[in-house]
Amino acid sequence: MTSAPSVSSSITARLEVEARPTAVSELTTAIERSGGIVTALDVTASGHERITVDVTCATRGEAHAEDITAALRALPGVVVGRVSDRTFLLHLGGKLSIESKVPLRNRDDLSMVYTPGVARVCEAIAANPEDARRLTIKRNTIAVVTDGTAVLGLGNLGPLAALPVMEGKAVLFKRFAGIDAFPIALDTTDVDQIVETVCAIAPVFAGINLEDISAPRCFEVERRLRERLDIPVFHDDQHGTAIVVVAALTNALRVVDKALPDVRILLSGAGAAGTAVLKLLLAAGARDVVVADIDGVVHAARPGLAPTLVWTAEHTNPRGLTGTLVDALVGVDVFIGVSAPDVITGDDVATMAPGSIVFALANPRPEVDPDDAALHAAVVGTGRSDFANQINNVLAFPGVFRGLLDARSHRITESMLLAAATALASVVTDDELNATYIVPSVFHPDVTNRVAAAVERAATP
Amino acid sequence: MTSAPSVSSSITARLEVEARPTAVSELTTAIERSGGIVTALDVTASGHERITVDVTCATRGEAHAEDITAALRALPGVVVGRVSDRTFLLHLGGKLSIESKVPLRNRDDLSMVYTPGVARVCEAIAANPEDARRLTIKRNTIAVVTDGTAVLGLGNLGPLAALPVMEGKAVLFKRFAGIDAFPIALDTTDVDQIVETVCAIAPVFAGINLEDISAPRCFEVERRLRERLDIPVFHDDQHGTAIVVVAALTNALRVVDKALPDVRILLSGAGAAGTAVLKLLLAAGARDVVVADIDGVVHAARPGLAPTLVWTAEHTNPRGLTGTLVDALVGVDVFIGVSAPDVITGDDVATMAPGSIVFALANPRPEVDPDDAALHAAVVGTGRSDFANQINNVLAFPGVFRGLLDARSHRITESMLLAAATALASVVTDDELNATYIVPSVFHPDVTNRVAAAVERAATP
Repeated sequence: MTSAPSVSSSITARLEVEARPTAVSELTTAIERSGGIVTALDVTASGHERITVDVTCATRGEAHAEDITAALRALPGVVVGRVSDRTFLLHLGGKLSIESKVPLRNRDDLSMVYTPGVARVCEAIAANPEDARRLTIKRNTIAVVTDGTAVLGLGNLGPLAALPVMEGKAVLFKRFAGIDAFPIALDTTDVDQIVETVCAIAPVFAGINLEDISAPRCFEVERRLRERLDIPVFHDDQHGTAIVVVAALTNALRVVDKALPDVRILLSGAGAAGTAVLKLLLAAGARDVVVADIDGVVHAARPGLAPTLVWTAEHTNPRGLTGTLVDALVGVDVFIGVSAPDVITGDDVATMAPGSIVFALANPRPEVDPDDAALHAAVVGTGRSDFANQINNVLAFPGVFRGLLDARSHRITESMLLAAATALASVVTDDELNATYIVPSVFHPDVTNRVAAAVERAATP
Repeated sequence: MTSAPSVSSSITARLEVEARPTAVSELTTAIERSGGIVTALDVTASGHERITVDVTCATRGEAHAEDITAALRALPGVVVGRVSDRTFLLHLGGKLSIESKVPLRNRDDLSMVYTPGVARVCEAIAANPEDARRLTIKRNTIAVVTDGTAVLGLGNLGPLAALPVMEGKAVLFKRFAGIDAFPIALDTTDVDQIVETVCAIAPVFAGINLEDISAPRCFEVERRLRERLDIPVFHDDQHGTAIVVVAALTNALRVVDKALPDVRILLSGAGAAGTAVLKLLLAAGARDVVVADIDGVVHAARPGLAPTLVWTAEHTNPRGLTGTLVDALVGVDVFIGVSAPDVITGDDVATMAPGSIVFALANPRPEVDPDDAALHAAVVGTGRSDFANQINNVLAFPGVFRGLLDARSHRITESMLLAAATALASVVTDDELNATYIVPSVFHPDVTNRVAAAVERAATP
């Protein structure tokens, strides 16, 4: 598994070079020899002796970008000017703006948008609070809430450093589902205070998307918010992942012609995502799921079993397995990893049942090298965009919230999550389905509509 | 003081009428006889016998709109269809949207807006938290925070019903200062909980605009937030009003050729706005201010003086007045009302010193009929848009926050408020200044820039 240069680590370097015929090709050759990929090149100024060239190239990351810059600097007659990072340039000033949907050209407009006209709208809502969903942004607005404790795979970076992710999430909500999402990054990690804060700011929102809150606090935050709020509360790290995994598994089983109730499933990971995947698998009809974590297979008699795993021990492992993850892999039909890099090898995958399915979702390094797994498994999926079958939450959360908002739903239930998974799987037609296409592209035009319609149906009494 | 029809209470009625030559003029005549003002008329469908007409007209309010509709219904051969309210139509779905500032066309974009590229931005902010003001929406985003307890003049309508005002405020922030403002309507009226909530959600914001929180709680909320937060906290009902009043008074004194330190000022109202106006007047150099509330003139010996008025009693009333508001008015140069309708009459104004100034800001009914006041005062201002000299907070808050954000200020001080007032007054040139033009229009192109530049200067160390 090699790491390819990525546009997400693109740099643009401003170079002054001598105006010789080979000057430009020397630059691109130097970049390519250093392992970079040139994606754009502009001559931005020219004189008799020298030209100015802006070169943009994809790199493998910051250290690689520095190597490339050094290689350019080493070329005779080249002066390296400003080197800028495309991803940082794109983030300048943040990724969202708040815009007015109404004109404000003159006093007449002002008298309707603000006082005195607005007073009648306020009075109408005071008389009938449900009208807030008609006459305010509550109709289409959700909060993306984090405390910054589990930002991507980076851990506890705090609320400020979590903001770019929350803004990105809001961009996805807008792009894929037309939803107005606002990032709320909380300056507290205390469960009581998180719950009180979200309840206090809830009036303007029609839904809450929890994001990157570390386990086990995320479970309690979600449970208590659902008890207290009359709007749906969704934890994407749990429920979004569960929907996409169940959808992908539904289609992978179509490929290998097996049925969910009949297959043996090994789930690596018992955190937020793992627990949610487990629950949705059981709700979807799975009957033989074994869960393993860093201490091996979860079973009721395991010494020092954490209280949070008691429910898991009681609802899984019908054949009473014990031992390690690798022991438990022998003969299973499905491996689902939501855990850590490199916990199994290609040889371990070879011990699975014929027609095996491997989802290795740890990111950026999966539980098993996908190329190695593919030597033995019938279907392989990862969380990465540079392999086939990317199991990506972006396939679920926009449509789920679109459906919830369209139904004006006050809650979210397991049957809505299952409906979303089934709808997502159905986007891949029989004619399209194969071992390398079990989930649609995130840019597939039907994804959001199909998921939203299914959730709206499930949410409508 | 008559109430004129307003476009803020416009209705559009769909009418089916007989296709006679006089049909349309009969409609407009009926509306005008009922006191409505026709602002638009479209024939939207036509047949041999009948036509469909959409008529839009300004009314004096809901009861008047019903009178007009009844008059139309009484016309022979007219069928009144759907009657819609322009202000409500404008509010459908709310007045704000959250938009992406970055493209999201393909996987390359996705890899920069979201994972994996965003991770580097998060890490940069974790290493240097000040970078959040460069790489996130914190650079240009403020919260408009209310608990819904003092919505316009309507009182405690609660958070949902307050939303249209907060959204309107956000529209004004965008229109006049390019600021991204998001409405936060709190489902609590408890001071501790308001403070904790605003502190918890503060990371994403570069400023807090408090709005429509009832006194005296608003004072403590503001004081405690200023102590705890490293971003400026501004209470528009207090500080916005104070800035515009001091600016207007500065120019009114230019008209009558008096100096602030020399004039006697009577301030009616000791609530949030009154207290803030008082403090800024004193900071600006006023030396003889008398404050009166519903119990008369505030002085240290007044029986049952509220603890919140002790400071006022100690810092005002140098001539030791007692008695009623009307008593205290005799011989003063300036009357400023931020209190209640009709507390004085035109005859009372006649008892003021020659060249008197009257600001009657209670809304919609001022402290004195402005037409009556104008018979005796040299300069009259109100909070209403249908009289000269509208003393409107919209003149202040956009520029104040623009200046604070541009300076990346961590706080707001009295010297910044004074700088804003001086800058606002300076927009009216000597050539423009007269008794009916002491403040510029809210649409004057220089207002925001002038106020912002002054605040930024005052905020820059």
